[in-house]
Order: sequence, then structure tokens, then C-alpha cells
Amino acid sequence: MITLLTDYGHEGPYVGVLHGVIRTIAPDAAIIDVSHTVEPYDVAQASLMLADAIPYLPLGVHVAVVDPGVGTARQPIALGCADGRHYVGPDNGILLPAATRSIIEQAVALTPAQPGRSATFDGRDVFAPAAAELATGAPLDALGEPVDPLALARTGFPEPELTEGGVRVRVSGVDRFGTLQLACRIEELDAHVVAQRVLVSSSAREVEATRARTFEDVARGELILYLDSFSRPALAVREGSAAGLLGVDAGDAVILRAD
Amino acid sequence: MITLLTDYGHEGPYVGVLHGVIRTIAPDAAIIDVSHTVEPYDVAQASLMLADAIPYLPLGVHVAVVDPGVGTARQPIALGCADGRHYVGPDNGILLPAATRSIIEQAVALTPAQPGRSATFDGRDVFAPAAAELATGAPLDALGEPVDPLALARTGFPEPELTEGGVRVRVSGVDRFGTLQLACRIEELDAHVVAQRVLVSSSAREVEATRARTFEDVARGELILYLDSFSRPALAVREGSAAGLLGVDAGDAVILRAD
Amino acid sequence: MITLLTDYGHEGPYVGVLHGVIRTIAPDAAIIDVSHTVEPYDVAQASLMLADAIPYLPLGVHVAVVDPGVGTARQPIALGCADGRHYVGPDNGILLPAATRSIIEQAVALTPAQPGRSATFDGRDVFAPAAAELATGAPLDALGEPVDPLALARTGFPEPELTEGGVRVRVSGVDRFGTLQLACRIEELDAHVVAQRVLVSSSAREVEATRARTFEDVARGELILYLDSFSRPALAVREGSAAGLLGVDAGDAVILRAD
Repeated sequence: MITLLTDYGHEGPYVGVLHGVIRTIAPDAAIIDVSHTVEPYDVAQASLMLADAIPYLPLGVHVAVVDPGVGTARQPIALGCADGRHYVGPDNGILLPAATRSIIEQAVALTPAQPGRSATFDGRDVFAPAAAELATGAPLDALGEPVDPLALARTGFPEPELTEGGVRVRVSGVDRFGTLQLACRIEELDAHVVAQRVLVSSSAREVEATRARTFEDVARGELILYLDSFSRPALAVREGSAAGLLGVDAGDAVILRAD
Repeated sequence: MITLLTDYGHEGPYVGVLHGVIRTIAPDAAIIDVSHTVEPYDVAQASLMLADAIPYLPLGVHVAVVDPGVGTARQPIALGCADGRHYVGPDNGILLPAATRSIIEQAVALTPAQPGRSATFDGRDVFAPAAAELATGAPLDALGEPVDPLALARTGFPEPELTEGGVRVRVSGVDRFGTLQLACRIEELDAHVVAQRVLVSSSAREVEATRARTFEDVARGELILYLDSFSRPALAVREGSAAGLLGVDAGDAVILRAD
Repeated sequence: MITLLTDYGHEGPYVGVLHGVIRTIAPDAAIIDVSHTVEPYDVAQASLMLADAIPYLPLGVHVAVVDPGVGTARQPIALGCADGRHYVGPDNGILLPAATRSIIEQAVALTPAQPGRSATFDGRDVFAPAAAELATGAPLDALGEPVDPLALARTGFPEPELTEGGVRVRVSGVDRFGTLQLACRIEELDAHVVAQRVLVSSSAREVEATRARTFEDVARGELILYLDSFSRPALAVREGSAAGLLGVDAGDAVILRAD
């Protein structure tokens, strides 16, 4: 079982080629496409998405490639975790929030086969082959040199910060419904915004939101602050778009304060 | 064999998580993604799309989730049909046009496992697990309480209506080529618009169309009224976009009259 | 093993229906979706994409359908090549750049099953069934009448042309990162633009580019002329978009000259 998460999009043959490379080495591997439309270069968003998805994915090899550093000196790595999962991707922090849900027991810097390696498509030339090898039972330490898990690169969104009586939080992702996933834990909001009614400000406008459990608790078109299905704080509009209402996009910040 | 039709889009990990949940329960299930880019919340469009696709899909479990009522009291249901197909989705009418191509023999309201069920992602927490159980051979009545098939919710587009010598019809869907699928049967058009040349009006403009069988019958750039590959009336422009030409989108209405 | 490349997009049930038809005939076939978001009607782009992907796809049946001529007299064809690969698609040139990486040993004009064939969806009614038959071991000559491989239609972008001291080249494709794939071979550029610094002009603006091997060789935001991972000349902006910078899209031309 191999899962794939990238920012490659579906405009080119890139995703199909990953499948082809994997199937050539591991013809019986089952492949799950987690998503290939992460915001281009948004390592932090991808790292959260993978961590959110992991509990719902079968044990296997999890490949994640959002890689602004492709062609530079950053290392391709593979991790082995105590829960039996393997992770494969660039050493830019994308794998860590998922992998550290368990304990990283082993980390290697992949030794790519040099002939035929391009300078810009490590997904095809390095990560997919390594994942396929792991799926066919190759031991992790056959794929490269050990590295210290504590020395791996980290990523993340800026921490929420206190501001003018409110909390400034980054939008880590926007889905198709315009739901805004917030880059914070609910405890961080609770510490500062305890009211049932919350004012949400973007650079464009300010809108009242209701803290509630689900859409049934608000009227159509109303803004709701709730715990999403991955237990992260999120803003949504019932049968509408919070991104549209607030005029914000992934990576933007919003300020939440008690109403 | 499990097929999936949703409005989840590919921006988040939602579709991958559905696959993961299914594969965890039913590792050998084959999964076909019918589409995940139905217009958000457009239950009627999804219901037609599923009904159109069904004759070309292998026997199996067909999941459809466009679910503006998630988190409200609407029931999650599963249906068993005389042709051997199962359907799983919310009780909002999305399943009926497909299921009633055969005869619904059995309907149950799914009893979701309560611990861990989120308020906003029944696809992951209710529908995918139920579909996977059915795919591994669980009997339908083990998944919930029987309900009366005749009491199930229905959906649909407004019927075509006569207006100023023409017929007003809803656009049920727009594909990537800008082809407009019309929410009516050809008989309903034939009853009122028998001419070979047809005037098609949107709120933006009025364009002459030719009734024909295929694109070869018209010039490039010309509007054609024809039966699409699912035998539904449709408007297209040869090597162009009817949606662009007429300035209409899914859900809009057009008026057709004899030229 | 069957691979699919089309311009069908994911808005309708078209891709799912292809999978369904294939799985109905060949339940155990593995299917790889190379891409379904080729520019609508862009046969030349699709033909390059398939040729690029082929070396990374397992041996099998490769279906490609970008088919502005559907419903006209153009023939549906299938090819058998010396390397063991089969190709299925319309006779409009889409298959040739891929197939001629090997030698076409056999070509047939497919004889479609007439009842039930629509005028506008040969992917479902002709190409998918033929591919599934081949995948289950049917011999090519059982699917239709032999045709002369030399008589098959060809496609392609206009050749690069000399102009005002530079070379005018077509953009064959744009990926999600705004990378521009150029419709020429590196030798054609080398013959006319040997400088390390290159001026790239679109109809909108003129930008300096650096010839280099990979993104590490330029600063963020800078334009780079390089060999992409399929060994084609391409223009990209490190962590940015060359399409955005130059204001060009697939099919547009750019002029390159020494700086």
C-alpha cells in the first residue's frame, strides 16, 4: 500500500508517471492518491494534510512531495516509524507532523540512482522508486545512509499571536467549499476567545461568527467557528463560502476576538 | 467493487481519506471515482450524473455524497436493488434516479458507530465504512433499521415550463467543453419545439442552434442541439463552448423556441 | 495494464465511465490515469505528453483520446508496437509520437459495435472496450481491419522559425507551476541561441532568462531556461510562474534571442 500527496496538479503527466514508476517496480502495490492539488510550494499545508489523513490510511508507505528545494542540496529521505508506517519525501519538514504521530525509529538519506536522474523531478526519479522498493519489502537501511531523526528539517505555520485583544491565526488551507482551516489548536483559541460570538477580521472585512458544533446550529449563509472533522478549528459558511465572505486565501491571516 | 461520487473536490485530503477508510475495511475492493467535482451542494446534478453513469459501471456498491444537510437530522441510508446493486448516501434524493433504474427492494437507515463520528464528514465516518462492509459481504439489514423506500426524500430540477411560445429548461450540468446538459427529456422538447432551427435564449443573449445528430452536421463555432451520449438533450458548440457562447452556468435556465 | 490520457476533465462522469466500461470487460485490469486535463481539443499537446510519459509506464495498452473529430469520418485505430505496447485512440496523430518511440508493427481501424454507439463519446463506446479486449488478450487483428501505418494522420506544433535574430517557438504545455514546455528540441535552440543569457519575448513583455541546469542556479523569482525532466527545453521561474511572468498560455509563441 502506497499513498501519494503532492502539489503536482493534474495538468501534466506527473501523477500518472508516479503511478507508472511504482507499478513498474511493484506491480501489485495498491496506490491511494491523497491529494495532488496542495497549493504549489506550500510545504506547511501539505504537512498538516498528511498528518490529518494518516489515521484513516492503511499501514503502508506514505509519499509526500511538495519540494521547492528540488535540485538543491536538500536531502531526499525515508523514515521508518514504530507504528509500522514508512514515509518518503524531501527533508523539508513535510513528513514530520505525520511521522511524529508515532515515533520515528529510523531515518535514512536516500541514495538516488544517478544515471537518468533529472534535476527537477525527484518524485519520479527518487521518491517513487524508493517507495516502491519499500512496498516490495526492501529494508529501509538498504535505501541510503542513516541520518539522525533529530536533525531533520522542520516546517510549520507561524504560531497564533495575541493582537489588540484578539488572536491572529494563519489560514492553513481552504477547501472546495471555501472552508478555512486555521493553523492553531482549539486550546489556543480557548485561552483567548471564550465567547460564543466571535468577531473574525480579515484584511478585507469583519464578520460575526457563531461558535457551534455543526451547520445545523446556524442559519444558511451564517459564519460558523467549529472543530472540523480532523479536530482543527475552522471557519465555514453554511451552504456558502467563508473564503469568499472574508476574502481570504490559504496563507492569509485572520484575527479572532470576542464579540 | 465500490464507486464514489461526491462534491468534495481534490483540494483537501477528503477523497484520499475515503479510499483509505474503504481499503482499511476492504483491502481488496476495487474503487472507481465517478467524479468528485460535482457543483458544491448540487444534489440534483449529482443524482442525474449517477443515474447516467450506472449502466456503464460494474455491479457493486455505489456511494454518492453531496450533502448540504450533513450534521442535521437527515438520515444516512443504504439501498438494495433488484439488479444486485447497492447504493449508499444521504437521504436527500441523490440516490433515487440511479436506484430506480431498477427496483429498490430494501432500504435501511444506517446506524453510525457513534464514537469518533464527526459532525461534518459523514463520507468518512458513515458512508465509506458502510460501503466497505457491503463490499465485504455484510447483509444490508445488518447496517441499520429498515425504512420505507416510498418515504425516501426526492430531488430534481424544476420541470420544463412553457413560456412565450418556447420551453424554459434548466441547465443541469456543464462539462469541461462548455456543453450544456438540459434537465428535460427529448420528448418534452419535441412536443413544443419541432423545428430544425431553434432559437436558444439565455439572460445574456439569443443564439440560433441547429438540431442535429453530431458535430459533423454543423460548422466549427456553431451551436448544436443534440442528444448527448447519455441520451439527454444538450447544447454544444463544435470545437467551442456553449456555456461561453450563451453566458450560462449549471443551474441557469435557457429558453428554446422554433426559429 | 491500461493507461488513460484524455481531455475529458473531471467535471462529468466521463472518466469514471471509462473505468467502469474497462472493469466490466477486464475486471482485473490495473488502470493508470496519465492525465484527463489536457487542454480541450489540443491533440498536439496530448501527443507530446503521451510520448513523454511512455518510458515511465509499464508495458500495456495505452489509450489517448483528444478527439475534436468525434462523430466525423476519422477512424478509431489501434496499434501494436515492437516493444509490446498497444495504443488505442482516434486517427488524428495523437498516438504517433509515443508509438514511434518503438516501431509500429500493426495498425487496425477499429470496427465498433454499432448498437448503442453514441455520436459523441467514442471513449466509452469504442476506445475503452477495445483497450479492455486487448488487455484480456484479444489479438489486435480481431478488433478491426488492417490499415497502413504510413497512412495514419499526423499532428504536431509548428516548427521553430527564425525571426529577427531569434527563434520563435510554440509553448506546447503549461503545468501547475506555470512552467512553459517549449515545442522544440534543445538542438534547435542551440543552433541559434548559444548565449548563457537569453531574452525571452512574449506578446506581453520581454524578460531575461538564464540558461542553467536546475533551480539552484538562479535566484527566487528569476526566469530559467533549462532541460525539463523529459529532456525538453522549458522556461520556469524558481518558486514562481513563467506563464504568469510572461503572460502566455499553451499554444502561444515566445521568441528567444541571445541577450
